[in-house]
Amino acid sequence: MAPSAPARPLALALGEPAGIGPDIALMAWRARRAREVPPFIAVGDPGLLGNRARRLGFEVPLVRAAPEEAAALFAEALPVLAAGPSATAAPGRPDAGSAACVLEALAAALDLVTSGRADALVTCPLAKSVVQAAGFPFPGHTEYLADRARRPDGTVPRPAMLIWSPLLAVVPATIHVPLKDVPGLLTTSLLVETGRIVARDMARRFGLARPRLAFCGLNPHAGEGGLMGLEDEAVVRPAVAALLAEGIAAAGPLPADTLFHPQARAHYDVAIGMYHDQVLIPAKTLAFHDGVNATLGLPFIRTSPDHGTAFDIAGTGRADPSSLIAALKLARRLADTEAVGEKAA
Amino acid sequence: MAPSAPARPLALALGEPAGIGPDIALMAWRARRAREVPPFIAVGDPGLLGNRARRLGFEVPLVRAAPEEAAALFAEALPVLAAGPSATAAPGRPDAGSAACVLEALAAALDLVTSGRADALVTCPLAKSVVQAAGFPFPGHTEYLADRARRPDGTVPRPAMLIWSPLLAVVPATIHVPLKDVPGLLTTSLLVETGRIVARDMARRFGLARPRLAFCGLNPHAGEGGLMGLEDEAVVRPAVAALLAEGIAAAGPLPADTLFHPQARAHYDVAIGMYHDQVLIPAKTLAFHDGVNATLGLPFIRTSPDHGTAFDIAGTGRADPSSLIAALKLARRLADTEAVGEKAA
Repeated sequence: MAPSAPARPLALALGEPAGIGPDIALMAWRARRAREVPPFIAVGDPGLLGNRARRLGFEVPLVRAAPEEAAALFAEALPVLAAGPSATAAPGRPDAGSAACVLEALAAALDLVTSGRADALVTCPLAKSVVQAAGFPFPGHTEYLADRARRPDGTVPRPAMLIWSPLLAVVPATIHVPLKDVPGLLTTSLLVETGRIVARDMARRFGLARPRLAFCGLNPHAGEGGLMGLEDEAVVRPAVAALLAEGIAAAGPLPADTLFHPQARAHYDVAIGMYHDQVLIPAKTLAFHDGVNATLGLPFIRTSPDHGTAFDIAGTGRADPSSLIAALKLARRLADTEAVGEKAA
Repeated sequence: MAPSAPARPLALALGEPAGIGPDIALMAWRARRAREVPPFIAVGDPGLLGNRARRLGFEVPLVRAAPEEAAALFAEALPVLAAGPSATAAPGRPDAGSAACVLEALAAALDLVTSGRADALVTCPLAKSVVQAAGFPFPGHTEYLADRARRPDGTVPRPAMLIWSPLLAVVPATIHVPLKDVPGLLTTSLLVETGRIVARDMARRFGLARPRLAFCGLNPHAGEGGLMGLEDEAVVRPAVAALLAEGIAAAGPLPADTLFHPQARAHYDVAIGMYHDQVLIPAKTLAFHDGVNATLGLPFIRTSPDHGTAFDIAGTGRADPSSLIAALKLARRLADTEAVGEKAA
């Protein structure tokens, strides 16, 4: 039985107007039948999408729509919800208006999700330098979204960055920090908290009955019993033990160099790395064009393509929408899985 | 035209007798026709090989031979040069005699190469804990071999560890050290020296007219211009500039996470990583069973399989000889390439 069309669309924030966000949004809509792209509503400047479509020679009918109409309209037209100022930036050349374009569209798209009018948030890339120059006080989308998920008591949930493809799912425990700071930032409690977030979201949103987590060692050969660094025994092993005591299927510390070939990957669902390159390297080696970034640990679902604004090819037609399409399909899957679980509960 | 049989064999040191070295040596000989394994002479205890063959149910005729006879005998029997004491260790259980078995065979095999009686050294794995307990003062084969290549003035050449497969060749600039020590160990002169060694050996032994070296950044996104760590600009970039000034085709610092997918790999011949896992992860993700470890920077050629003693499967028949076979074939290729270059010079 084919699944019925979802009642609610995904909300797609168009991201940096000078980047490839508008290009890949249009391309994803054009591929909706061939690649089974789930219905989404584009949130941002409709003029930006129209101009980019003309520049690229795409015939894409745009339709201003409320999110409630979007899923039904999607087969015939690309639904757009106007948000933010009109974009003035040319492809590859962000200008003073870019930051407001990005941030107001992002806020409006998130509002659709938190108000229950869209099922999940999907974000096209922003340019960190552009939004930070305009006063955006966060390293990226993830931290902004965590802040917007602030709890009534004022605390902010810890987000975790999942890089997902059908071949490999990874989460770095530390992300955009200098390598020299990594050993000092790793604590048992950080790793336990990260493990809990990953286990919970892999269960409720990915539908895994008992997610298996594999923790990388920090040092070569996972420290070889203390011969090459002490953190693996002092920090990582106690975190794995604590998670096991909570009933979470965790293993490690495991030598990272032998953790990513096909036979090794069969033994876990998510590999948790100690730092960015340790897990981003295998993730992008195995799935460069269709990796997806998903934020775990937040009360809503958010995915994004696993690439940047690509200013050099914006507006040229050379952008590859595969990662965005994978992000849209994963967001749909996570929302459906979570909804089934909530009905069952 | 088929190449004529080489006059000189490769010298294969059998390594830890309780490990899989004897197993894979026998398996490589048995695969000599099907997998075009070049002639080698096994150096170590002939009784060890005979016993292991019986245990595995292999009919392998062993022949005591001088290296000068080995290549001609190789089609019909496995040539062995006796060296070191008889092995007493059972598979999986190294004993007090193991260290002498490993080290005397290694020294004898190296002597064959340095005296011109064999073309290259290939080493089966040793167990670091076994030989170090017996007083071996080196972290592994590589450092021992560098010491044996001590120059008349007493200095020791710097070796570099190349992990090679047809898909990817990588060299870590630092190897078996705790991750926290890596930023302090990286210096511009270390990277320049490593780059020179790699460029020279890729030219004279791999036959590349102008080897292209890609230097990984140390930090996420290669530091993003200093936003995430200063070493990439302060240490790596000057090293690349110095190598370029010497006429070596070097690039970097490059973000390591996007350096190992197929399109990226087309742009370089060797990726130089700042630490072990940064380049061992992609190397073993892409080629787990047939990666080869080759030592660069020494006056002789040495390769080895890219795995350890595998005590748990020694003597069971479950060892995979693919990496040893790849190591033998690469050693043959490097020796032939270097010989052609020397004739031309």
